[in-house]
Amino acid sequence: MKRLSQIYPSDRISLREVGLRDGLQLVRTWPDTEAKRAWLAAEARAGVRHFEVGSFLPAARFPQFGDILEVIETAGTLGLHSAALALNERGVEEGVASGVSEVVCVVSATEEHSQANMRRSRANAVSLVGQLAARRDAIAPDKVVNAGIAMAFGCSISGAVAPAEVLRLAEACLDEGADIVGLADTVGYAGPRAVGALCAAMARLCGDRPFIIHLHDTRGMGVANAAAALDNGARVIDASLGGLGGCPFAPGATGNVVFEDIVFLAESMGFPTCIDLEGLKKARAIAEESMPGEAFHGALNRAGPPQNAAWRAKPAA
Amino acid sequence: MKRLSQIYPSDRISLREVGLRDGLQLVRTWPDTEAKRAWLAAEARAGVRHFEVGSFLPAARFPQFGDILEVIETAGTLGLHSAALALNERGVEEGVASGVSEVVCVVSATEEHSQANMRRSRANAVSLVGQLAARRDAIAPDKVVNAGIAMAFGCSISGAVAPAEVLRLAEACLDEGADIVGLADTVGYAGPRAVGALCAAMARLCGDRPFIIHLHDTRGMGVANAAAALDNGARVIDASLGGLGGCPFAPGATGNVVFEDIVFLAESMGFPTCIDLEGLKKARAIAEESMPGEAFHGALNRAGPPQNAAWRAKPAA
Repeated sequence: MKRLSQIYPSDRISLREVGLRDGLQLVRTWPDTEAKRAWLAAEARAGVRHFEVGSFLPAARFPQFGDILEVIETAGTLGLHSAALALNERGVEEGVASGVSEVVCVVSATEEHSQANMRRSRANAVSLVGQLAARRDAIAPDKVVNAGIAMAFGCSISGAVAPAEVLRLAEACLDEGADIVGLADTVGYAGPRAVGALCAAMARLCGDRPFIIHLHDTRGMGVANAAAALDNGARVIDASLGGLGGCPFAPGATGNVVFEDIVFLAESMGFPTCIDLEGLKKARAIAEESMPGEAFHGALNRAGPPQNAAWRAKPAA
Repeated sequence: MKRLSQIYPSDRISLREVGLRDGLQLVRTWPDTEAKRAWLAAEARAGVRHFEVGSFLPAARFPQFGDILEVIETAGTLGLHSAALALNERGVEEGVASGVSEVVCVVSATEEHSQANMRRSRANAVSLVGQLAARRDAIAPDKVVNAGIAMAFGCSISGAVAPAEVLRLAEACLDEGADIVGLADTVGYAGPRAVGALCAAMARLCGDRPFIIHLHDTRGMGVANAAAALDNGARVIDASLGGLGGCPFAPGATGNVVFEDIVFLAESMGFPTCIDLEGLKKARAIAEESMPGEAFHGALNRAGPPQNAAWRAKPAA
């Protein structure tokens, strides 16, 4: 397979745009395939390289992902790294057989959420990661195996989550063959201290291997949590254009942390993103037009970058 | 005077609610005196203790502050610490003669902004702080003298601002008799690295004396910047209910960092606030009703605190 360090280099940050996946999970309207293609192309022009493009789910129940194979193909044509979610055995098979660059399985941090969300135990979800890795090895050696730990900072069903439990699950996923593990604040419970501490522990666990931090801005902590993650070794951050994507467990809440704001944050902290904010504005216009009535968030998009001042800090030493 | 350490204790954090001052600077509608009283009383019940309640400015040009003496009186009756802005000699005289607990003068970090905003040089603004301190000593020894450094993290007119220049001005204000100095990201240019570094330097400069950090959420960095400030010794944070308050130099921008979100942030970081979020919701309803058409922000207010989980972290060691 293409080496992980080429996809997610450890000496710089990678921002994964999850709008076309997590952002579309709950929407009433969604872009058609042409609009998704235009969205991807516009963001590619702005310098975005990593995308979650959908989920392998039954099109009857999740029509917004019915065109996932076409979107994956477009991402490939544009030379982008594409990722898609697989939540069961059938999804794993579809993912491995598809042209997607990365297949993502989810393991809940709590048994209660695992049963409620996926109707399987955590141990079973971990073994699905192993099944994905085995199938990848057998027939699609180029693909990245990604395991995301949902509810890693607190669970809307069972409350507090012990960091040691998250680390145990992360290690189990790596043992099963995951190339990269993500920590998700699925319901936006975390503050920066919790994120910093768990990221520091993950950095120790993962060594040279990158890990992903996936944040929701449900309680306004998203950017602060991303800063804490960057301060503590995270180099791959999920975000969605305009903060698209609510949360099934927190109705009415804001969604993923806002991609544009994370670009500004990262640059201000001395992590070059090579992403053009003006270009993101154009991509956002395409996305907004394709989803009338959906709420797009983000302060940077409204205010623009600072005038008369260098806001891209020098890279951190 | 009441000792500064009793007003802003160094062993805990103090959150200054600036909605009635900074929050009303640019609004088209504002609460009448009764609504301001109800707003103060509701926040007092929620546990808020520090308020900026207005500015000593000509009522003809700033009618929203025409009732400042009555609002100060209400704050006093409620046992609250009140602060108000004085931007010229006349304001200083009015402030010292009033019942306000704290008079705030502003010094711009850049000569260009000082001239544009106050029609005086920075040196002249610093000497106004000295004049305030002298008048306080002479006739109102109980009052706190506060000097705020505007544009401390970048200036919409002249661009980048050297941290050394901000520290020089802060020291000059202390030398002139200021009891406490604030650093303001007036136009929301800062990221958490810049805020953390300048706060750490201010903590060294101020020693045991507290200093204030005043943040705007113009580019979505407000909460992240507050976290960086707390991580680097700041113990007094300005915020406004619902993030009220735009910026005259950044039209359409979001305003001050959101008070409710800062309460959540602080608690999540182990800094007890003794502030009740449900109580803030009631205060916000009063404020919103009194200012129809004004935009109130904040994620915490919409989503509510986490369910089934302890979100107030144990106090930091």
